[in-house]
Amino acid sequence: MPDHHGLEKAEFWNRRQLLKAGLVVTGLMGGAIAMESIRQRHYAPRVKVPALPETASAQAQEFTPLTFLREFDYGAVTQEKGRTVREFRVEAQTSPIRLNRATTFITWNLNGRVPGPTFRATEGDRIRVIFYNKAGHSHSLHFHGIHRSEMDGVKPIRNGSVFIYEFDAEPYGVHLYHCHVAPVTRHIGKGLYGMFIIDPPKPRPPADEMVLIMAGYDVNDDRKNELYAFNGLPDYYMTHPIPIQQDQLIRLYVLNMIEFDPAVTFHLHANLFQIYPTGHTLQPQAETDVITMGTAERHILEFSYRYPGKYMFHPHQDDVAEAGCMGLFEVVNNTA
Amino acid sequence: MPDHHGLEKAEFWNRRQLLKAGLVVTGLMGGAIAMESIRQRHYAPRVKVPALPETASAQAQEFTPLTFLREFDYGAVTQEKGRTVREFRVEAQTSPIRLNRATTFITWNLNGRVPGPTFRATEGDRIRVIFYNKAGHSHSLHFHGIHRSEMDGVKPIRNGSVFIYEFDAEPYGVHLYHCHVAPVTRHIGKGLYGMFIIDPPKPRPPADEMVLIMAGYDVNDDRKNELYAFNGLPDYYMTHPIPIQQDQLIRLYVLNMIEFDPAVTFHLHANLFQIYPTGHTLQPQAETDVITMGTAERHILEFSYRYPGKYMFHPHQDDVAEAGCMGLFEVVNNTA
Amino acid sequence: MPDHHGLEKAEFWNRRQLLKAGLVVTGLMGGAIAMESIRQRHYAPRVKVPALPETASAQAQEFTPLTFLREFDYGAVTQEKGRTVREFRVEAQTSPIRLNRATTFITWNLNGRVPGPTFRATEGDRIRVIFYNKAGHSHSLHFHGIHRSEMDGVKPIRNGSVFIYEFDAEPYGVHLYHCHVAPVTRHIGKGLYGMFIIDPPKPRPPADEMVLIMAGYDVNDDRKNELYAFNGLPDYYMTHPIPIQQDQLIRLYVLNMIEFDPAVTFHLHANLFQIYPTGHTLQPQAETDVITMGTAERHILEFSYRYPGKYMFHPHQDDVAEAGCMGLFEVVNNTA
Repeated sequence: MPDHHGLEKAEFWNRRQLLKAGLVVTGLMGGAIAMESIRQRHYAPRVKVPALPETASAQAQEFTPLTFLREFDYGAVTQEKGRTVREFRVEAQTSPIRLNRATTFITWNLNGRVPGPTFRATEGDRIRVIFYNKAGHSHSLHFHGIHRSEMDGVKPIRNGSVFIYEFDAEPYGVHLYHCHVAPVTRHIGKGLYGMFIIDPPKPRPPADEMVLIMAGYDVNDDRKNELYAFNGLPDYYMTHPIPIQQDQLIRLYVLNMIEFDPAVTFHLHANLFQIYPTGHTLQPQAETDVITMGTAERHILEFSYRYPGKYMFHPHQDDVAEAGCMGLFEVVNNTA
Repeated sequence: MPDHHGLEKAEFWNRRQLLKAGLVVTGLMGGAIAMESIRQRHYAPRVKVPALPETASAQAQEFTPLTFLREFDYGAVTQEKGRTVREFRVEAQTSPIRLNRATTFITWNLNGRVPGPTFRATEGDRIRVIFYNKAGHSHSLHFHGIHRSEMDGVKPIRNGSVFIYEFDAEPYGVHLYHCHVAPVTRHIGKGLYGMFIIDPPKPRPPADEMVLIMAGYDVNDDRKNELYAFNGLPDYYMTHPIPIQQDQLIRLYVLNMIEFDPAVTFHLHANLFQIYPTGHTLQPQAETDVITMGTAERHILEFSYRYPGKYMFHPHQDDVAEAGCMGLFEVVNNTA
Repeated sequence: MPDHHGLEKAEFWNRRQLLKAGLVVTGLMGGAIAMESIRQRHYAPRVKVPALPETASAQAQEFTPLTFLREFDYGAVTQEKGRTVREFRVEAQTSPIRLNRATTFITWNLNGRVPGPTFRATEGDRIRVIFYNKAGHSHSLHFHGIHRSEMDGVKPIRNGSVFIYEFDAEPYGVHLYHCHVAPVTRHIGKGLYGMFIIDPPKPRPPADEMVLIMAGYDVNDDRKNELYAFNGLPDYYMTHPIPIQQDQLIRLYVLNMIEFDPAVTFHLHANLFQIYPTGHTLQPQAETDVITMGTAERHILEFSYRYPGKYMFHPHQDDVAEAGCMGLFEVVNNTA
């Protein structure tokens, strides 16, 4: 796509900053809007993203699964010696999350949210993560991807300390980060994890892009999960269906971060999706509607819906689904 | 295969109807017979299917795993506005099944059988499923594949009601259906599921085709399975080995319908199989002898045996195999 | 590679025999050495394998995970009627293994070791396994791969008996063997398993090749595993990191032999690996850093490390990892 080259420096839409500035929030309250792609490096054709419901807009200053969904953190961008450096400032915290009416859970988290921010970069960028530990005890950030041993994040960072993880973003794909302090089951189970997307040098086609992270909550410390969630809150997308546009290409970045259960599937209703394993390929490898994912596996799944209406997504381990890991897409009519 | 076109309207062999009419039953009592392919749309070269043992023939009026194995329900076929419509009439029932000498289990099922009938169509056909619920409480039929939201089968159909599910058969592949009333673990675990095969427009090569559905039985309602089975009855194919012909291409349609266990493998002894993931490809993607399948995953597996004798198949989670999910192929000598 | 043909009869380096003869042991005590490939059929470019630590050398007469790692048993080779026959003499034994300071476990094993020897052959060779059962009760050897029913190893061989398994090595790939006497969970769980590698006719490129077998120990007979291990001993490679050379192609033969847990993943830190499913392909099928493996699944994984230092590998089911299935590679600087 040679016509993209001249626009590589085009202004970069950090949706999070927009949300903070209230710019998009207003737009989201209206009908369906055509949103610019949030990619930095190319000018995308318009991707149709329906408006979020008003309740979601009202909550936009807080962290909720609906704001997490399409929010990508591209970091603070500078140029050093001719290359792009993305600096992310994050803080390990300890804070409660209300999982349902009966259950409040003390999380260990990044920036007060579970999952942590979705870091995003382009292959070859320099990544600098300034990690402040204010959580009360030791934590670390272990990234998947290629890096030096010293940057592998298995060394605990004591409470009150700062560590700067620095490495190149490679290879392109859907990766993750999580605390690697033992017991890792507990540090992940309590919420210290997130997604790390590295875009290929030539961007993927425009799409309505979303992050879905499956996780479990071991509420009573019995090394089993009593509750499950997509993006932090059990059953959230059942009561707050995700609006998507009819015939719009949807690109899911899906990660299984569930401890104690060896594997789950991801199933989409009334449709099939194309699978890009680990997001580390530009060609789909298969098309199906049920895919098995062990802990820490993650993929890009692409699809579009032909007919309006509500459609479920959930692991087909139905005990996991029915304990909170279940959601709905609401496909909005194209003529609406 | 242009020579198939003139035979597209050739008479369709519904093996189930033949069994009822006693036609094939007689044949099955003799030696190995060459059976016509049961496909509707083409005249297949002869596929060699050995005779079933007499005990199986004697049970042919009842539902047993040996009669389920090679039985495909193509529905009642009509032409409407120039296209093929397949109408399936099914009834949700509640009835006991004897799992072994000690255990009788109350199933929720379709047409009195577990698993339910294997519906089969060609891509592009119109499917009409007339679902009578006579089971005593609410059930539904949720199909995998592409269809409108209204036909997704997540809405409970009350006892005594009828619902007509209607949609196009797409895309080709191995799909499934199951009750989607909550708790789904229970509605599947008690037997309300089956396979739904959509053949590609150009049929696959002739083969001895079989359905193998793995399922678990939570006999004591502890959300774990105490017994497992292929096609409904624990250990059935261990005491009733499946006769297959030496050097004959075997095409298995395998589905994992086990709840509570996150995943199982399917393993074939002394051989390898080619994998067509979700049956949604015409080219095999890999060849192995152990494949992991999460709940609701299903594949086409193809192989043939070079040497006569008995060969086991089972999940390599050996606790699952040894609790009933185990069977035998008996390869019959070509010169027999 | 036509220039290999003239060397097909080149002397065959049986590393085990060398170890016994003390030849390589001496070499291993020095600095990094360039070791000949242990393949029989071609002259490989030099593969760099760093020296093992002295403690490992001292233990070289005993079985430890560090000696198992790179040890391949090619059998006693003869020519019969123009083809290569490999004869393996193995003995089922019952013997204790010390899993950690607190736990001694009675194993059922082959040749006193858990896992058993890694048998290795080239596709088309004749395999003859002379199996002596001196373990005190019935056992058998069931091989994966293609063979006749009589050689399938499901028939128990009584204590004090000998059985000769004989079959052709096919097809090329990473296979396994294990006792198939019921309950198989117990016969595998107590240690009667090993790897069986069949090389393709044209050898794979030279690499530092290693075997990693994941297994679980059900110490208290509750049908759950309390401890896990790579190559027999929990946490062994955490205290004895595996030295590998920077920028050296590493070829792992990885097998999941864990009973009671449906599946685990294999995860490599700070790197990605290329996957050759079941080792039954010459082209990698995908590249990732986390792969799900059900019981009895096995793959070839290839990678090299760019930077020196220590890197973990483990299932990302972190409860499995933290109960002993965890190890370290120590990447040695190229200039060292």
